[in-house]
This record gives sequence, structure tokens and C-alpha cells, in this order.
Amino acid sequence: MRVSIADRTEGRLGRFLASQNFEYAITGLILFNAVLLGVETLPAVSKAIGRELDLLNDIILGIFVVELTLRMVSFGRAFWRDGWSWFDMTVVGVGLMPLAEGFSALRALRVIRLLRIVSVLPSLRRVVEGLIRALPGLGSIVVLLLVLIYVFSVMATKLFAATNPELFGNLGASAFSLFTVMTLEGWPDLARSVMEQHPWAWMFFIVFILMSSWAVLNLFIGVIVEAMQSQARSDEDEDGPSAEPAVITGSDAILAELRSLRLDLQRLTESSGDRRR
Amino acid sequence: MRVSIADRTEGRLGRFLASQNFEYAITGLILFNAVLLGVETLPAVSKAIGRELDLLNDIILGIFVVELTLRMVSFGRAFWRDGWSWFDMTVVGVGLMPLAEGFSALRALRVIRLLRIVSVLPSLRRVVEGLIRALPGLGSIVVLLLVLIYVFSVMATKLFAATNPELFGNLGASAFSLFTVMTLEGWPDLARSVMEQHPWAWMFFIVFILMSSWAVLNLFIGVIVEAMQSQARSDEDEDGPSAEPAVITGSDAILAELRSLRLDLQRLTESSGDRRR
Amino acid sequence: MRVSIADRTEGRLGRFLASQNFEYAITGLILFNAVLLGVETLPAVSKAIGRELDLLNDIILGIFVVELTLRMVSFGRAFWRDGWSWFDMTVVGVGLMPLAEGFSALRALRVIRLLRIVSVLPSLRRVVEGLIRALPGLGSIVVLLLVLIYVFSVMATKLFAATNPELFGNLGASAFSLFTVMTLEGWPDLARSVMEQHPWAWMFFIVFILMSSWAVLNLFIGVIVEAMQSQARSDEDEDGPSAEPAVITGSDAILAELRSLRLDLQRLTESSGDRRR
Amino acid sequence: MRVSIADRTEGRLGRFLASQNFEYAITGLILFNAVLLGVETLPAVSKAIGRELDLLNDIILGIFVVELTLRMVSFGRAFWRDGWSWFDMTVVGVGLMPLAEGFSALRALRVIRLLRIVSVLPSLRRVVEGLIRALPGLGSIVVLLLVLIYVFSVMATKLFAATNPELFGNLGASAFSLFTVMTLEGWPDLARSVMEQHPWAWMFFIVFILMSSWAVLNLFIGVIVEAMQSQARSDEDEDGPSAEPAVITGSDAILAELRSLRLDLQRLTESSGDRRR
Repeated sequence: MRVSIADRTEGRLGRFLASQNFEYAITGLILFNAVLLGVETLPAVSKAIGRELDLLNDIILGIFVVELTLRMVSFGRAFWRDGWSWFDMTVVGVGLMPLAEGFSALRALRVIRLLRIVSVLPSLRRVVEGLIRALPGLGSIVVLLLVLIYVFSVMATKLFAATNPELFGNLGASAFSLFTVMTLEGWPDLARSVMEQHPWAWMFFIVFILMSSWAVLNLFIGVIVEAMQSQARSDEDEDGPSAEPAVITGSDAILAELRSLRLDLQRLTESSGDRRR
Repeated sequence: MRVSIADRTEGRLGRFLASQNFEYAITGLILFNAVLLGVETLPAVSKAIGRELDLLNDIILGIFVVELTLRMVSFGRAFWRDGWSWFDMTVVGVGLMPLAEGFSALRALRVIRLLRIVSVLPSLRRVVEGLIRALPGLGSIVVLLLVLIYVFSVMATKLFAATNPELFGNLGASAFSLFTVMTLEGWPDLARSVMEQHPWAWMFFIVFILMSSWAVLNLFIGVIVEAMQSQARSDEDEDGPSAEPAVITGSDAILAELRSLRLDLQRLTESSGDRRR
Repeated sequence: MRVSIADRTEGRLGRFLASQNFEYAITGLILFNAVLLGVETLPAVSKAIGRELDLLNDIILGIFVVELTLRMVSFGRAFWRDGWSWFDMTVVGVGLMPLAEGFSALRALRVIRLLRIVSVLPSLRRVVEGLIRALPGLGSIVVLLLVLIYVFSVMATKLFAATNPELFGNLGASAFSLFTVMTLEGWPDLARSVMEQHPWAWMFFIVFILMSSWAVLNLFIGVIVEAMQSQARSDEDEDGPSAEPAVITGSDAILAELRSLRLDLQRLTESSGDRRR
Repeated sequence: MRVSIADRTEGRLGRFLASQNFEYAITGLILFNAVLLGVETLPAVSKAIGRELDLLNDIILGIFVVELTLRMVSFGRAFWRDGWSWFDMTVVGVGLMPLAEGFSALRALRVIRLLRIVSVLPSLRRVVEGLIRALPGLGSIVVLLLVLIYVFSVMATKLFAATNPELFGNLGASAFSLFTVMTLEGWPDLARSVMEQHPWAWMFFIVFILMSSWAVLNLFIGVIVEAMQSQARSDEDEDGPSAEPAVITGSDAILAELRSLRLDLQRLTESSGDRRR
């Protein structure tokens, strides 16, 4: 992607931003930032040189902001069309928010800035692009899962809110509990604690598990089938024109040869006839 | 499906029921009902305007009943042949039951009326049809799983009912416990609590886990293979006549050309012979 | 299988044993036995008519023994070559064991007699044959898993027996614990209880989980690939001779046509030459 | 591998080391060592004849060292190029370490010497080679998973270290906790214990679960697709030259035949013309 942007760039700045060395520099900066943020979690270090670390973090954040601004200026409209630009702006932008007062809880979120490593390294970028490309085909089944969770959440809240308030006290709690059941994690304990009051509740959980597992399984299969098809497609592309068109070409050549042969023969026949007359 | 029904309908009513606008209206009504049923779960809201919400719910239910009746009248026999009609009648019909006294526990069940969204939106309908189409081929393996659970449930009840009544006290409890073991959820704790009294019980559980996992794995594989085949089939359909018949057609054209060439040659040979005589 | 046996049988008895009606009768008997064994698990019923149920069970067992003996006599060598005969003899034979004194714990095992339903119903038989056919190709990876469990069990026993005797007290306990870790079930609790004494134990568990998951994943993939290949093979068989040989046949026909055409032309040329001379 | 080494070996020693009998001897020794190490875990046995067992272990270790040295001498450079040589040296070398003082905890590690069974038996060696061959293609996605775990670990440590020190007290603890969440094991309990203080923490866990599950799923799919491709490739190799080149060859033969036919016809036409003149 970035390469295609670079192709269209003519200024020196564009070539600099798209150069291999600049990529290395940014990668290095992200890795350094990763170490910094890791070290910061040690209470002793945080106490001793917390201020200095904060300053360094702000400097790195500043460099990222400058880099993105340069990109924006240099690549113009191509910058805004690239999905990765928006990704970069988001994960860097989160780092700018905690500077405002009262958002101290958001400070931890600025760590996602490290995810920029994904947009900088081409191999990771390709993997993530592959993961995202598989998503659209799964829209319907995800909607189906959400419908399923919503319907069962409302039902569970109505049925079990009075007896199991900690698990199904309100719509949110029910949705979370049913999500844990969908991952199958700890569902026997959860089901048994509900069945103490509602002995028939096993039906509710088994129906939900069978339906959601079925949907999730088909979600997985959708991804697998999709992956195999795109694999098959890229295999074909690599092979150049595939064997079958070659066969058709072969037939075409034969047919052309035959037609000219027939014309020759007709001319010969005509000439014989000429002579005969 | 609904489209094919509409094709055969001639009356104005039929066209109205199959129109895009009517679909939007029903979708909107279902979404509104979804919000309503969600809001109803809030105790404060339920207390304050519970009666009004109930009334609204009944009105929406009434609209659904009217809609289904109109469909029934308008589409005639086609209505009864469509599986989705039966689905709609079931999920709407559940909403009518709680009106009778003494079924207050079933009131929560009327939420499944929201599942109508699946039958109304074509994309969801297609996904569910796909999920259901995969089922018949799995009948045998599901029967096998049920046989497995039944046999092991009887065995477990006989063996462990005396020592672990809460888990294996009767056939139903055993079947539920073995189902949880089949999902692998919490099986080590369950197995250990049984093994306190029956140290050799690990054999029972490991044999059951290996056999049921094996069956479930093959159930999954059946679905995957089925999905890929139907994918391959639909790919072929999209390609129009596939490449191989084309090759055969090519051969046929060549053969036809050759035969006419041969006839020409024979005629030429005959004419030569004629001349010779 | 049974059908092929029946083909070779000439006596009346053979035809009777292989008849559809006899299959129905045995199926019915197994289902009746299933109900019987299910009812027997109810303490009230067991107390009231336990003796009668036992008698009925013994009668059914007797019928099975007679049936198998008839089969043995009628089908001769074919009986012994059929794997399902051995299966039937085993699951029925288990029912004979508890008749001896002192094996009362084995009484529960006679329930596996119900598994005969698998050998009697052709559709279930085919599913199980499919499941078993996939096994041999997996031998090596199963051996690998066993080697992995053994090596890690010995290691865990040496390392953790002193501090966690209930989990890793001896080789058997360690193998069971590691099997539960392999199913991932409850491994965090187990690992944390070990890590209280051995803080570095997380390495042991993570290495084991990664290695065993990797092996199990490849076991699954082996089964999937195997299933798809056998599917592809059976698809080919159904299509009759596949398309590609048809193409080759087409080429052959063309070549034959061309050769005879060439001969005709040669003869014509010769005749022209004759005339010329 | 070893076979190819043996091919190049000319000395008697090489032939002896690569002989079937020597393979059996080493396999037997490893199995005997396995039994020995298993027996050693019994406290009673360990007390009674622990010294003798240790001596036997040391003797076997000595034999392994001698064997490897002979291999090294005999196969020369080929020894060092074989990955399995390095594997053997590592798992045997671990057994030499505990001989030094102060490494008594490493004594348990010498059990991994039993893994040599994998390098000795060709069938297991092939399975492991298959497992390892699938790894390189997965590098990017593994890096992605590590980035994910690191970023979320730093975030979790900053957010939850104060309230849940036992789970997220430092970077290492957080990484371990998030790894357990990634295996989905016990995540509802873990999430609930965090949510007591941070009610919005469900977002953190659900986002992490969705992202990591997505990545792991794609890791699996990568392995499956890879396995199927290599299967398809080896199928092709077995079939010899595949059918499609045969078709092309067929076309080539036809074209050659047609060209010579045309030449014959031209010559005939020319001769006719000759006559005409």
C-alpha cells in the first residue's frame, strides 16, 4: 500500500518517508517505546525515574505526531485513502487524549500505540490485511450470533434475574454471562447454580449452547472455506495462465489448422473439377 | 422463497405483502419490539410503565397475527409449503400462549418472537437455511452420540449414584453431567470428585472423552467437507459450463471438421477415379 | 458386510438371519433392553420389580447368545472374518461375566450390550466404520502424544511429587493431571497451585501445552485431510470414468481419424502418380 | 536422513551405525531407560535400589555419549548438517549437566533423553519433521500474537496491578494471566474478579478474547491449508506426470499429424498443378 503511495509521490519528502531507512528508524522507535512502557510497569523504576520516562514517552509521541503530519502533507489525498493511515492516527491519537485532565484512566490505553508495529512492518501488515479481508463474508453470521445473544439475554433476565441477580441481574450481566457460556467456559457451574432454583434450566442452556456452537462452528468453516478459495485463487495466479485455457488454445490451433487444410483441399478439388470440365 | 411465492400471487394484497416497503415496516416493528422487550427488563421502567409496555407488546403481537393471517389468505397453499411460515407461526404463536392463565413462566418465552428478524431479512434467512441444510447428513453421527450418552449415563448411574448423588443421582442428572464432560468443561473436577470413591473411574471418563471427542470431531469434519463441496458446486454453477465440457466440445468440433474433411477427400478421390475410368 | 455374508449362505437359516425382519426384531429387542436398563436405574422400580427386570435381562441376554450361536453355525468362516462379529461377541460376552460371583461391580458394564444397536443398523455401522478407518493413519502421532505424556509425567513426578502429592504424587496421577492439562481443562488453577512452590513451573506447563496442542491440532488436520481425500475419491467413483480420460479418448479418436485421412490422401497421391506415369 | 548419510559412508563403522540392528539396539536401550526412569519415581524403589538405578542411568548415558561420538567421527560433516544430530546432542547433553554440583533441580530434566526415541524411529521422525515444516509459514502470525499479548500485558499491569496483584502484579504475571485467557480457560472467573473493582473490564477481556481467538483461528487455518497443499502436491508426484500435460501432448501429436497431412496435400496440389501446366 505504502509503496503504491510512494510511487505517486515526487517530492523529496515523499521518497524519504517511504525509504527503507525511515521504516527501520520508526520500527526502532516503536521497539524502544515498547521497552520503555514495559520498564515503566516496575514500581521501583516508576518511582525513581517516572518523570523522565514520561518525558521520553511524550517525545516519542511527538515524533509520531510529526511523522504522521509529514505523511499527511506529503502524500495528500493518498494518505486519507489508505486504511492504515487511519489506524496510525487512531492509535497515536489515543496517546494525545490523556494529556487532558481527568482522563488519567485512559493513560494505560496509550500503550496501543505499540500496535503501530503492525502498520510499519509489511509482513505483519499483510497478515492483518488477510485477517480483515475474511471479515465481510461473515457479517450475516455475526449478526445472527448477536440476535441469538440478545434474545437469550432478554429471556434469561426475565427468568433468572430474581434468583441469580449476580449472573443475570440486568441485560448487560446476562449478555456477559451468555457470552461466557458461548465460550463454554465454566458453563456447568453456572448452569448448576441456576438449576438449583429452576430445575428445568438445563434446557435453556443446552439449547443455547447447541445453537451458538452451531453458529460459531459455521463461522469458523466460513473462514476456512474462504481461506482455501483465496489460496486456490492465488495458486492459479502464480501458475500463469492455467492448464485448461492451454488445452482450449490447443484445440483452437487444431481447428485453425484443419480449416486451412480444408480450404487447400477445396481449392485442389476445384482445380481438379476445372480440369475435368 | 418469499419471492417465488409472490411471483405466483396475482392479487394486490400479495404484491403488497411481498413489497420491499412492507419488509422494511415489519423489520422496523421487530426492532422496535426488541427495544421494548429490552427496556422492560429494567425493574424501574417495568414498575413505572409496565402496563403500557404490555399493551404495546400486545398491539405488536396483534399486528404480527394480522400479518400472518393476511399472508395465509393471500398466498394460499404456497404459504403452507414454506418452512419459514411454520417458523413464523411458531415464534408468534408462543406469544399467544401466556395470555392463558397459569403459564406465567412462559411469558419470558415470547421474546423468541424477535427471531422473526431471521425470517424477514433475506441475508439472515440464507445463513440459517445454509446451517439447516448441513444437518441431515449428520443424522447418523448425532444418533451415535445420543446412543453413547445413553449407554454411559445408565452405566454411570449404576456405578456412581450411591456415592455422587448430586452428579449421577438419576438418569437425567447423569446425562447432563456427561454432556458437560463431553464439552470438556470442568471435567477434571468432576472426575476427581468421583475418583475419591472409585479410584479406577479415570478409565470411565477418559474412554468417554476419547469416544465422544472422536465423534464430535467427525461431526465437525462432516460439516466442513459438506460446506466445501457445496461451495465447489456453486463455484461450478457460477462459471457456467465448466472448462472440461469445453474441451470435449473442442474435440467434438475437431472430429466434425475431420469427418467433413474426409468426405471432401473421398469425393475428390472418387472424382479422380471417375476420371481415370 | 452382513449382506456379503448372506450372499454366500445357502441354507434357510442364513437367509432368515440376514432377513430384514430379523434385523427389525433384533433392533426392537435392543431398544426394549435399553428401556429396561434405563427403568432399572430408578430406585423405586428397582426395589419393587428388580427381580423381574433381572429375569427379563437374562432372557434377552439368552436370546442374544442364541442369535450369535446361530450366526456362528450358519455363516461359518465368514462369521469369524467379520470384525462386527467380534464386536457383538465382546459386548454380549460382558453380560455373561457378572453371572459369576464376586464381579458385582462389572454388572454395570453389561449396559454396553446396547452398543449392539451400532452393529445392527447399517447406517450407524457405516459411520463407525468410517471413524475407525481414519485411525491407522494416525498411529504415529498418537504414539508421539503418548511419548510426550510419559516423558512429561516422569519429569513432573520427580519435580512436583513432594510439593503437590495429590496432583503429581506418582506416575499415574501425573499422567492423569497432564491429560487434563492437554484438554486445557482447569490448567490455570493446576499451574498456579504448582507455581506457589515452583515459581518457574509456568515454563513446564506452557511448553507442554504448546507441544501437545500442536500435536493434537495435527492429529485433527490428519483426520480432516484424510476425510476430504476419501470424499474426493468416492466423488470420482460416482462420476464414472472421470472427464480427463474422456479428453484423452477424444484426442485418440482425432488421431485415429487423422491417420486414416492421411492414408486416404496417400492413396490418392499414389493414384495420381500412377496416372502421371 | 540417516540413510542418506549412510550412503556416503564407506567405512565399516558407518555401515554398522546405520544398520537396522543397531537401530533396534538403541531403541531397546531407550525403552529400557524409560522403564528405569519410570520405576525410579516410586519412592520405595528409589530408596531401596536408588544407587543402582543411578549407576544404570549413568551407564546408559555413557553408551549414548559413545554412540554420538562414533557417529560424529564416522559421518564427519554430514553429522553436523543433520538437524537430528543437534537434537540428539541436546537431549543427551542435558543428562550430562546434573553431574555438576548445584544443578540438582536439573536432574529431572534428563528424562527428555527419552525423546531420542523420536529421532531413532523413522515413522516418528517423519511426523515431527512434518510438524516442524509447517512452522515457518506461521512466523508472522505468532509475532502478531506476541505483540498482542505484550501490549495487553502492559495495559493490564497498569490498569489492574493495584487491585489484582496476584493476577496482574507485574508484566510476567499479566502475560501468564492473559495466556490463560487466550486458552479461554477459567477466563470468566478471572474477568469477574477484576470486574468487581473495574466494572468496565469486560470490554478489555472481550476485546482481547475476540482478537486473540481470531489470530489463533487463522493460525490453525494456516496449518490446515498448508497441510492440504502439501498433500495435494505429494498426490501429484505419486500420479507421475499429471493428466493435463498428457492432453497437451495429445494436442501436439494432433498438430504434428495435421502439419504433415497439409504438406502431403500441398505436394499433391503441386503435382496436380505440374500436370496441369
